[in-house]
Amino acid sequence: MALVNPHGGGNLKPLLLEGAAQKAELARAQTLPKLKVSSREAGDIIMLGIGGFTPLDGFMTHGDWEGVCDGMKMANGLFWPIPVTLSTDDENIKAGSEVALADSATGEILATMKVTEKYSIDKAHECMEVYKTTDMEHPGVKMVMAQGKYNLAGPIKVLSTGGFTEKYGEQFMTPAETRAKFQAMGWSKIAAFQTRNPMHRSHEYLAKVAIETMDGVLVHSLLGNLKPGDIPADVRSEAISVLVENYFAPNTVIQAGYPLDMRYAGPREALLHALFRQNYGCSHLIVGRDHAGVGDFYGPFDAQKIFDEIPRDALETKNMNIDWTFWCKKCGGMASQRTCPHTKDDRILLSGTKVRSMLSEGQDLPVEFSRPEVAKVLQKYYAGLSAEQNVKVELKGHSAA
Amino acid sequence: MALVNPHGGGNLKPLLLEGAAQKAELARAQTLPKLKVSSREAGDIIMLGIGGFTPLDGFMTHGDWEGVCDGMKMANGLFWPIPVTLSTDDENIKAGSEVALADSATGEILATMKVTEKYSIDKAHECMEVYKTTDMEHPGVKMVMAQGKYNLAGPIKVLSTGGFTEKYGEQFMTPAETRAKFQAMGWSKIAAFQTRNPMHRSHEYLAKVAIETMDGVLVHSLLGNLKPGDIPADVRSEAISVLVENYFAPNTVIQAGYPLDMRYAGPREALLHALFRQNYGCSHLIVGRDHAGVGDFYGPFDAQKIFDEIPRDALETKNMNIDWTFWCKKCGGMASQRTCPHTKDDRILLSGTKVRSMLSEGQDLPVEFSRPEVAKVLQKYYAGLSAEQNVKVELKGHSAA
Repeated sequence: MALVNPHGGGNLKPLLLEGAAQKAELARAQTLPKLKVSSREAGDIIMLGIGGFTPLDGFMTHGDWEGVCDGMKMANGLFWPIPVTLSTDDENIKAGSEVALADSATGEILATMKVTEKYSIDKAHECMEVYKTTDMEHPGVKMVMAQGKYNLAGPIKVLSTGGFTEKYGEQFMTPAETRAKFQAMGWSKIAAFQTRNPMHRSHEYLAKVAIETMDGVLVHSLLGNLKPGDIPADVRSEAISVLVENYFAPNTVIQAGYPLDMRYAGPREALLHALFRQNYGCSHLIVGRDHAGVGDFYGPFDAQKIFDEIPRDALETKNMNIDWTFWCKKCGGMASQRTCPHTKDDRILLSGTKVRSMLSEGQDLPVEFSRPEVAKVLQKYYAGLSAEQNVKVELKGHSAA
Repeated sequence: MALVNPHGGGNLKPLLLEGAAQKAELARAQTLPKLKVSSREAGDIIMLGIGGFTPLDGFMTHGDWEGVCDGMKMANGLFWPIPVTLSTDDENIKAGSEVALADSATGEILATMKVTEKYSIDKAHECMEVYKTTDMEHPGVKMVMAQGKYNLAGPIKVLSTGGFTEKYGEQFMTPAETRAKFQAMGWSKIAAFQTRNPMHRSHEYLAKVAIETMDGVLVHSLLGNLKPGDIPADVRSEAISVLVENYFAPNTVIQAGYPLDMRYAGPREALLHALFRQNYGCSHLIVGRDHAGVGDFYGPFDAQKIFDEIPRDALETKNMNIDWTFWCKKCGGMASQRTCPHTKDDRILLSGTKVRSMLSEGQDLPVEFSRPEVAKVLQKYYAGLSAEQNVKVELKGHSAA
């Protein structure tokens, strides 16, 4: 059995230059006007670099932006659920300009771009179509509203993976690398488990339901920026590693990460998650409760339902829906609302806030909620935070990691 | 979403006459020579009657028999994994004869048949191809070897459901009925769970893994004859009902039964199980460890592997493979060999013999092995058996039920 095809049906299209070509372009980039890009834009550039956004060749035009907002379709007809755009306030950059795109946090030049179009957008329209709200409390909306006055379209040449390779080593796998790994393992039916949190038993259960009937699971962590208060990627990765070592059978899980920031676009982001997992070679995306959501902006199963609303051939990678999962005392096991007939009182349910406060205070979590090995990693992290809370500057540095 | 099509791609083809047509044919049948059919043949006739063997119109010809044995293909090219044949020693019946087919146990006329061909077969060849053995210890081989000297082919008109409707009421659903039920529930992704045993927690887990990602499960019990020592269908049905009531969410399980005898053909029978589940409207068949096997005649996963060996378009109903399942103390939950990294010693494993002896002695089964409500139903049955053991005649009557 073969893996799913990259999105669009062609080959992977990584835009990252290598070797001499990279060196030459980097030298040329030093001579170009610099444009500082936001964290979200930097993540998109790196994703384009490694082929995760195949078959895009750069940032979207006005026609693409409009088609994607209004009908999830690029100007050439290709399915795409969220605009991938670059913005600026710079009045000097014009169609025909060449610019170097530099990470605003580190100053590193990530790419060069040939600007083919400069256009302005109705940001509120993008927010309503993509995020279903213009509420500035929504972190994705806030990002769009904070964009520059103009969008720039055009093909890019990527020059760096922005430190992800150095920071995450083997875990920062490119789509070509996950595909090669799947093929080496003889896998073709692979579920991607999207995560931006450590895995508790409810997440372990989701992954295991997939493993029962498929070849394996790609636990695929977001390595870009999150909301303040979320667990940093390195701690999360350690917590997931102890879980996999102790509670999963060998050769059923691959842990890897990808460079994007969260947009928190709920249903539309679930579609983007499936789209780029297709590039990574996964046949399925596990879609649980409130996938890629934030606050109460989306219904708990909107991200599952949207997969029924797109054309059948839009994506080869399919959604694998799973309901809200938990330990039920009467079932005497993990279950979901689809498999447990009992009541809320029979279930062990802890809010994120409660879990954080228990861990911060060094309390053990119930073994039905979290594996002790996982809880220990998180307790250690929170203990570190508390110590630093006395040294406010350090804490600030840590939170931003 | 639509249900899978009946096998062959056309409409269901139930051969059961109804109303006036049935009455007239039954009157005519009284005038025809009677041929007594075995229990297995009676089950096949009823299955043909209700459309479970769509699109067959009767018993197979020599060409069909040969094609099915050697290549799982009928003379017309249709996929079929096990011969459906009728046998006799009667020298007087010839091609062109019409006969009435009567149940040898009850004497009831089940069908009329127009004999189109009379032929003899190499029984050992059938056994080697279909059962992979000619060992008379194999109950399926024993049945083939006990057949008459000749096979009779020809279309049949079915006149009765042989008492299944009366005995099992609503639970004896025809393919048209399960399809109507699925459609009324809005289901299209349905896994059939084949069972000839009560459901312990390992079976509950198989069904729940399916329910997590599909619309529902058809728990589909064999109502025909089994090996001596197996739990009778009515007790099994009661044990399954208490399980579903107490441990499954509403509207996720339909319990029904079908009239066939077990052939114990392992891999080939798993294919037949998928084929007739397609007629019942199920998109998937759960295939666990040693599906439809007996003794050590088949490898534990041969019945899963054979689905990879048939042409892709042979069946619309697909296999959903699940490994050996159990409670693991270290996992603290149900698991399979695919999801549990621990050792045999960590798992609660009881042989069938051990379970029978514990239940017969009125002992409780571990709650990790069987739900207490289920164990209670089985204890009651075994207690009844033991009492009767003192009255040997009654016991014999009971065992044959």
